[in-house]
Amino acid sequence: MSIGVRGKMMRTLPTFDNVREAAGRIQPYIHRTPVLTSRTLNSMVGAELFLKAENFQRVGAFKARGACNAVFALPENEARRGVATHSSGNHAQAIAFAAGLRGIRAIVVMPEDAPAVKVAAVKGYGAEIVWAGSNPLDREQAIKTVLAETGAIFVHPSNHFQVIAGQGTAAVELLEEVPALDMVMAPVGGGGLLAGTALSVKALSPRTRVIGAEPATVDDATRSLRDGRIYPPTNACTIADGLRTFLGDLTFPLICELVSDIVTVSEAGIVAAMRLIWERMKIIIEPSAAVPVAALFEHPDLCRGQRIGIILSGGNVDLDHLPWLQSESTLPAHALASVSAR
Amino acid sequence: MSIGVRGKMMRTLPTFDNVREAAGRIQPYIHRTPVLTSRTLNSMVGAELFLKAENFQRVGAFKARGACNAVFALPENEARRGVATHSSGNHAQAIAFAAGLRGIRAIVVMPEDAPAVKVAAVKGYGAEIVWAGSNPLDREQAIKTVLAETGAIFVHPSNHFQVIAGQGTAAVELLEEVPALDMVMAPVGGGGLLAGTALSVKALSPRTRVIGAEPATVDDATRSLRDGRIYPPTNACTIADGLRTFLGDLTFPLICELVSDIVTVSEAGIVAAMRLIWERMKIIIEPSAAVPVAALFEHPDLCRGQRIGIILSGGNVDLDHLPWLQSESTLPAHALASVSAR
Repeated sequence: MSIGVRGKMMRTLPTFDNVREAAGRIQPYIHRTPVLTSRTLNSMVGAELFLKAENFQRVGAFKARGACNAVFALPENEARRGVATHSSGNHAQAIAFAAGLRGIRAIVVMPEDAPAVKVAAVKGYGAEIVWAGSNPLDREQAIKTVLAETGAIFVHPSNHFQVIAGQGTAAVELLEEVPALDMVMAPVGGGGLLAGTALSVKALSPRTRVIGAEPATVDDATRSLRDGRIYPPTNACTIADGLRTFLGDLTFPLICELVSDIVTVSEAGIVAAMRLIWERMKIIIEPSAAVPVAALFEHPDLCRGQRIGIILSGGNVDLDHLPWLQSESTLPAHALASVSAR
Repeated sequence: MSIGVRGKMMRTLPTFDNVREAAGRIQPYIHRTPVLTSRTLNSMVGAELFLKAENFQRVGAFKARGACNAVFALPENEARRGVATHSSGNHAQAIAFAAGLRGIRAIVVMPEDAPAVKVAAVKGYGAEIVWAGSNPLDREQAIKTVLAETGAIFVHPSNHFQVIAGQGTAAVELLEEVPALDMVMAPVGGGGLLAGTALSVKALSPRTRVIGAEPATVDDATRSLRDGRIYPPTNACTIADGLRTFLGDLTFPLICELVSDIVTVSEAGIVAAMRLIWERMKIIIEPSAAVPVAALFEHPDLCRGQRIGIILSGGNVDLDHLPWLQSESTLPAHALASVSAR
């Protein structure tokens, strides 16, 4: 399938066949994560929820899927050149992890202010780190230099054919376990997870709607989908640090074609949803993973009475800086009213 | 089986038959919790670990098993009188939960300084609360008054025939899933979980050793097992607040007969083990559940090279007061040295 975006060169988009290939390719390296349910949560939102727990995935996030697929899809002569990426988040660890598995070089451009714990994790997997300033231009320049000097293959965190195909494998597993869903929700930042999820859902269960969720403070995906053009990222902050990126010329056309809607949620709603999952389900999810959960509370009409799959994207959190210990957060009143029963 | 303790009246002890009965009785009301593994943790401790995740149990702890068994084992004429207990912790919620399921009255004696969140949870399940001072004598007096005035049936948090039998069902499920274990570890406070676990393990896999773990600051179980007599609780503090109770005339003889050893761990070790499980396994466990995990690091000779089952007892934590945000904690140096690889 090929779709042109705003007059740019047509690029070949991944299809569900590529997701199927990815599933076979990465199966030896990733976890088949469990699908969790919670009657407490169900009764609070008035829906039946099926949570695909990618917080239990290798490296603690779904990113292991796309990174493994991209790295293991490389022919031997390209793999020998190594891989490179820019990321201060889960994709950095995922690329380092995947390259380590294949025994090839990995170079990660990270901002100088990246948290020490993330730097240590990337190094722990054996990747090399190249430092750059924290603004996007510095980062672009740094990765260009790396690619020119090393000949390494660039693996973009989201807008990459095999990365999108790899991320789609989580939804395949979800639908294998719970076939009849009314809706599948995923957070959207760069759109790799949402696009891959949509490919799988629409192929396996065409009547199931796919809904993206993003922080209201960085609502570029919502506006992009509405206006049919990719908006640049805003400078705004969000606690869901994995979602500050923006759509690309592969992820955007897939989302335009296959995703029913993108909804936004408040920062307070993200924090409250994250805490709720920790307290009631006893699992650790990161703020980005809480974004679609927050949408259940902030968009109740969308969800009520539905069977809903949610990709819980990851669980990498700095336990020294938990959001509810720094700022006030509240669930919407209708949610708080039903919190008492487990 | 009947064993006398220090000249006291002989009391009938539960056997594995009672655990089997309990398993059938409580099956409709409890979760069959998953057994989790982690290659990171395995490589850190040099053992193969199988963690029975009772933090995912109803009410967030294994206590739901014993409470459901005690409540549903009551004949109709006794059940009609209601049940009562004293607890500020998971047993209080569990009794409230079980009584609610059976539709009978539950009265819980709680200390006036019990955390508001625990009080709310007990009330949320529909139990009545009777306030008492926070010292054991006040509590004893309050429960006596409640029993005399209401005729309710007392369900002790640990030293109770059907509670012990119920707690043993977790180990039954563990051994059904992972039959060939060298060792099963559980935390010990009042000893209900450890005694029940030992009943199951010794019946199903006689060669498997059962080891208890408790905080060094409240090592009454260690000293009791060593000296063959029940020591009263010390006044010392521990972060593992579920383990401040002491052994009874049912739990103690079972532990003496069936448990190979009880080991102690430091407070810093408990905090570090708890944080490690949160960070690496992305699950929330409470300090008491971290006690046997800490033992793996503080008693490496006991564990190395073994296949070890661990009952992760529960996951009820006050997310506003996490221990690593208040005090310094460290893993033993040999553990820290191997933290880098996931």
